[in-house]
Amino acid sequence: MLTVLYSGESDLWPVYEPALAAALREAGIAARLVLPGEATPESVDYIVFAPSGPVADFTPYRQAKAVLSLWAGVERVVGNPTLTQPLCRMVDEGLERGMVEWVAGQVLRHHLGLDRHITAQDGVWRNDQVPPLAPEHGVTVLGLGVLGRACATALATLGFRVTGWSRSPKDVPGIACLHGADGLNEALRRAEILVSILPDTPETNGLLNAETLALLPPGAVVLNPGRGTLIDDAALLSALDAGQVGHATLDVFRTEPLPPDHPYWAHPHVTVTPHIAAATRPGSASAVIAENIRRGEAGEPFLHRVDRDRGY
Amino acid sequence: MLTVLYSGESDLWPVYEPALAAALREAGIAARLVLPGEATPESVDYIVFAPSGPVADFTPYRQAKAVLSLWAGVERVVGNPTLTQPLCRMVDEGLERGMVEWVAGQVLRHHLGLDRHITAQDGVWRNDQVPPLAPEHGVTVLGLGVLGRACATALATLGFRVTGWSRSPKDVPGIACLHGADGLNEALRRAEILVSILPDTPETNGLLNAETLALLPPGAVVLNPGRGTLIDDAALLSALDAGQVGHATLDVFRTEPLPPDHPYWAHPHVTVTPHIAAATRPGSASAVIAENIRRGEAGEPFLHRVDRDRGY
Repeated sequence: MLTVLYSGESDLWPVYEPALAAALREAGIAARLVLPGEATPESVDYIVFAPSGPVADFTPYRQAKAVLSLWAGVERVVGNPTLTQPLCRMVDEGLERGMVEWVAGQVLRHHLGLDRHITAQDGVWRNDQVPPLAPEHGVTVLGLGVLGRACATALATLGFRVTGWSRSPKDVPGIACLHGADGLNEALRRAEILVSILPDTPETNGLLNAETLALLPPGAVVLNPGRGTLIDDAALLSALDAGQVGHATLDVFRTEPLPPDHPYWAHPHVTVTPHIAAATRPGSASAVIAENIRRGEAGEPFLHRVDRDRGY
Repeated sequence: MLTVLYSGESDLWPVYEPALAAALREAGIAARLVLPGEATPESVDYIVFAPSGPVADFTPYRQAKAVLSLWAGVERVVGNPTLTQPLCRMVDEGLERGMVEWVAGQVLRHHLGLDRHITAQDGVWRNDQVPPLAPEHGVTVLGLGVLGRACATALATLGFRVTGWSRSPKDVPGIACLHGADGLNEALRRAEILVSILPDTPETNGLLNAETLALLPPGAVVLNPGRGTLIDDAALLSALDAGQVGHATLDVFRTEPLPPDHPYWAHPHVTVTPHIAAATRPGSASAVIAENIRRGEAGEPFLHRVDRDRGY
């Protein structure tokens, strides 16, 4: 009988307890699910983890075979010096699907100019412009990990001219893939719509700043469902005021919830969505956790194990 | 040297003249493009036609080998008793692409609840609901012609559970295809989001009426990029007021432009778009026209020839 500690958000325990129990049963794993205090740290075999949960010091969990993150982003735990156990990111089919839907929906919204019709129902028949077609719009996806690749591919399937960028060379069918510093400049120049799905690392912090935003085509749209730290907020607000960026639709922020007095809320060319693009779904996430526990017990390599040096 | 008469909208002649000339040249066809009055009717070999153009009586065009519509919908010409020449609909890759983009964008907009975020930027962080995923939403596409099939397939690729309906049996990979009167009832019952892309025929006129709208799941979304005549407007407004239909996004109307005092403009749960879903693009449409002239001259069957009995 394994002991699996839930150290996620306490609000979500009523949702995760049955979901994890069902997934473990489904995977044929005999385990008891506990909260901190319900078992001694030494008896814990696996830790189901979110940064918003109670465990911050992993030292007492001497027998734990892995820390299994419920979040895709691990920047708040990867640098924890007490963490010596293998760390696995969440790569959840529901999360990937949710991200693809948010990105496809927002790209089409801006591409088609839906806001004009949603907000101006004033009796004026404005059919003077033939809307553009997707191949006429260049979309750049920054980050070609699992989520970035899925989004880039979905956008290419919808007909957009998609450029992808990543730090190291990648190859994604149907996507013009660029990499490195020179590639970034070219990727930004092509981005009538920019989608940033990079992980949060020291290298990506503030990647979208005054200098890089100036490379975008004038009036470009910025979509950020990745990480709040990718953006230099003051630089983005200046670029919006100058019209260099036409609109920003942002799902993630340096401080969440975004404070009510943050200028993003009031800016006419900013849409805030409340970190919904890649919400983890308890059912599919629990299946990923159970599969990693099965792998750990069978001596197989973990799925989605984090490379500490890269930070993701 | 062929004579090709342009009887489309006069406003669009400055756009179509160079586009048609380029497409004919590209297809290796020697032709002069004329407006009515610039050539005798007897000398005209092909008529490029829109219902909004000048020609209404085809009798004098005794030598014309075909009437080539610039519009996908031919309901305003198919019943013309003076029309004895073959009639071809416009099936334009740009038109199909534009329709798919409008439908995918509007379905994702309603699926994701984008309006809430677009219109309510009030500083309140509303992340209490995990957004649904596409497989949790049933979408029904009425009409499985070229445009309907393309839309249904794009929606299925995005992950939606798609049901398609057509008068006669059809088979589209990845789509649950229903047909006939019984099939229609079932297709409507599954339609959390309904997309109507049927042609305008006596059978489809008023197809969405009090009886059929009552079969939708309560709060369903109705999207109509097809034909305005598909909808019984009074019945739709009643269903919206009763909450049986949660929202209607309409691109086509019985009278266009939609009159400024029409109740659709003022209804809080209706979005009007000004017949933009399937705008014909002059470049790609001209290529289709030129290809049909090439076929006519080579004695090959015309593309997209209208079956007068079916009406499309």
